[in-house]
Amino acid sequence: MSKYDIIVLGSGPGGYVTAIRASQLGFKTAIIEKESLGGVCLNWGCIPTKALLKSAQVFDYLKHAEDYGLTVKEFDKDFTKVVQRSRGVADGMSKGVQFLMKKNKIDVINGFGKIKPGKKVDVDGKEYSADHIIIATGARSRELPNLKQDGKKVIGYREAMTLKEQPKKMIVVGSGAIGVEFSNFYNSMGTEVTIVEFLPNLVPLEDEDVSKQFEKIFKKRGINVMTNSSVESVDTSGKGIKAKVKTQKGEEILEADVVLSAVGIAANIENIGLEDVGIVTDKGKIMVNDWYQTNIPGYYAIGDVVPGPALAHVASAEGITCVEKIAGMHVEAIDYGNIPGCTYTSPEIASVGLTEKQAKEKGYELKVGKFPFSASGKASASGAKDGFVKVIFDAKYGEWLGCHMIGAGVTDMIAEAVLGRKLETTGHEVLKAIHPHPTMSEAVMEAVADAYGEVIHL
Amino acid sequence: MSKYDIIVLGSGPGGYVTAIRASQLGFKTAIIEKESLGGVCLNWGCIPTKALLKSAQVFDYLKHAEDYGLTVKEFDKDFTKVVQRSRGVADGMSKGVQFLMKKNKIDVINGFGKIKPGKKVDVDGKEYSADHIIIATGARSRELPNLKQDGKKVIGYREAMTLKEQPKKMIVVGSGAIGVEFSNFYNSMGTEVTIVEFLPNLVPLEDEDVSKQFEKIFKKRGINVMTNSSVESVDTSGKGIKAKVKTQKGEEILEADVVLSAVGIAANIENIGLEDVGIVTDKGKIMVNDWYQTNIPGYYAIGDVVPGPALAHVASAEGITCVEKIAGMHVEAIDYGNIPGCTYTSPEIASVGLTEKQAKEKGYELKVGKFPFSASGKASASGAKDGFVKVIFDAKYGEWLGCHMIGAGVTDMIAEAVLGRKLETTGHEVLKAIHPHPTMSEAVMEAVADAYGEVIHL
Repeated sequence: MSKYDIIVLGSGPGGYVTAIRASQLGFKTAIIEKESLGGVCLNWGCIPTKALLKSAQVFDYLKHAEDYGLTVKEFDKDFTKVVQRSRGVADGMSKGVQFLMKKNKIDVINGFGKIKPGKKVDVDGKEYSADHIIIATGARSRELPNLKQDGKKVIGYREAMTLKEQPKKMIVVGSGAIGVEFSNFYNSMGTEVTIVEFLPNLVPLEDEDVSKQFEKIFKKRGINVMTNSSVESVDTSGKGIKAKVKTQKGEEILEADVVLSAVGIAANIENIGLEDVGIVTDKGKIMVNDWYQTNIPGYYAIGDVVPGPALAHVASAEGITCVEKIAGMHVEAIDYGNIPGCTYTSPEIASVGLTEKQAKEKGYELKVGKFPFSASGKASASGAKDGFVKVIFDAKYGEWLGCHMIGAGVTDMIAEAVLGRKLETTGHEVLKAIHPHPTMSEAVMEAVADAYGEVIHL
Repeated sequence: MSKYDIIVLGSGPGGYVTAIRASQLGFKTAIIEKESLGGVCLNWGCIPTKALLKSAQVFDYLKHAEDYGLTVKEFDKDFTKVVQRSRGVADGMSKGVQFLMKKNKIDVINGFGKIKPGKKVDVDGKEYSADHIIIATGARSRELPNLKQDGKKVIGYREAMTLKEQPKKMIVVGSGAIGVEFSNFYNSMGTEVTIVEFLPNLVPLEDEDVSKQFEKIFKKRGINVMTNSSVESVDTSGKGIKAKVKTQKGEEILEADVVLSAVGIAANIENIGLEDVGIVTDKGKIMVNDWYQTNIPGYYAIGDVVPGPALAHVASAEGITCVEKIAGMHVEAIDYGNIPGCTYTSPEIASVGLTEKQAKEKGYELKVGKFPFSASGKASASGAKDGFVKVIFDAKYGEWLGCHMIGAGVTDMIAEAVLGRKLETTGHEVLKAIHPHPTMSEAVMEAVADAYGEVIHL
């Protein structure tokens, strides 16, 4: 029986990052993976979808080339090649993780890992033991009872990124990041897309101003948006599908070639031995403390299997925190109030902290500022005037409660707000940090100025 | 004679921002402009060049559409329309400033302003007075004695952005931001470009690693790069031009249609009455203190006419500082060590703080980290793997001494470093600020991790 200091179950951005940090800290480490290194994020999530969306962005540029003084006579997308490119990018990243495992002397064990009492893990009949076992088995597409995925006509994100043929008509159920990113991609490619969202707003976790602006832009793109609506049932007996959709005005039958179910995720906590070991779960998640220890000593869990936002960067941070604590380092618990969220549509969405509504509900008196990219020189020059930056400050102590962005490139701009909030900045300091001209990032400075009645370009 | 609280001379990003802030603070304000509102930045600098470069970027996408799974059969640029678009963007921004002047109740006086003793300004024969006169007359293209600009064959940036016909061959003298941005634009459009730089590196103000990487990429684009070289003379007598270039290997004759002189700027301090009033200048710049007061009470100067980096965002910040001080506010002096600089080529360059060489010369013991975009998932997905983020920390106290970036979108990413440095962050805090995945901004976190031996993805 092979003995390790640390065994990590699952090699997604939670697992493989945990394993690398563990190895850096001197632990003899193994990682168990049943499929491809890199997990969903690298193979079926963050990375391949960004590749698809990049093709969509370039395709949109072709369509609008005239706006930039260019002429394109004949152009088209090759759907198969667009998908192939995305798979190539994912494969390259997965190979990268393979290289990182080797470089960090981490043993990669291929197979399905199941934890056992006595700090052991069974992988398809072979047993391994470790002082510390970290569960990072991630999550999968959640299934609704009335929207069972058959992988062909009712699909999840995995199938949606490898369809052999481009559908002519698609219904996307759910408008979180996954739903709207695929809607954006297929709309750009020329598919007729309808989004069905149960809640009143698209991207319902975002600040309402962002959601409303986003819906406007999505509608302008020609995407059908049905909010306050739900798919009651899907008839897949014909050539395509017929979906019965309940709206506020009554029932509607929508026809399409395919339905993408994007109604969130379910943690992979089944059949991995949690019950044998006696690890406590609640509402489908593994219960852990600030250091990701489960109720059973020596067993830890991080990433999508524990409560909190199911995001790659959160999983990575949790894994690092977990092993640094095991190593006896002085570790700060993760501040779940300062986790950025990004949506890679066109325009992009990025946010961190409280929405205006949440801040009000918490009883803060607010200073809110907003700066539209329509007033930004860089945005004008780039032909990217859609969107804005919105900032929310506590009026009393000046704390930066939230930052919400919609526009070109904002997923790379939110880091400023994350770091600023971590360093407990006030608005004054953001305002007096000289932002370069002409950039989209000036909108952050100007939004803060707006909150304090000092905005220049409005 | 009209009497104001504040008169601002010049309506560039120094002048017009100063005027707006002055008006916000309750001052009766006038601004004098001899040409178009917005000055060089809006009309002949930052903004129209970014518009040209956006067309170039989209044109590059057309050329590489296949990389993204797309096919383009026939495409071309319409040089005239590309230039027209750029002029349209500039005009729109200038109209925007006009609107801002009106909205802020700032009197716009058209004409050439000349200051006079007794806090007066003469504008083409008409006299105005003010309690405070702020000189913000900016700068123009500097002329070398052996490279006299005739506006046709030997041109400056103004002509370079409005050429009637696209030159087939162009020599660009100087490789600061202006020189390399035009080189990038004309190279993309299909002009054969040669850059002649006197110093050993392109973009010589940047960290050497950035310069070297940049030169490599520019050469790969097909731009001829001649460093350690200078143009000795230009013969414009023929159809095109012949430039005698001194290189380390001897003299060379280069032929081209046009030479762009981009060897820096000269402040506009002539004929504006400085001598009459007795305002002290030195090396072509107006001498001021921390609050932009000249030696004569009531006269101030900001922007390109005072020492310091000649950048739009610096001019704006100086103007705001100047009028806030006049208003009696508690004002911090600008930290000239924390001014970001951006170059909008493809890939972009952005930096703030000390280069590695400067930091070493100052005697710091360093921790240097670097993260290449080739190891970034987002960069792979975007097809933008060129470049890196480099960070420089003081080993002793952890101060973030410098941050240097080259890559797609980095001009919007540098704000994080500016704010972090303003808030006196350490590397540890940047590392523990959770950057969203997958973004280019993760490279900042990873570069910091690299400096401290904790990098994950290398």
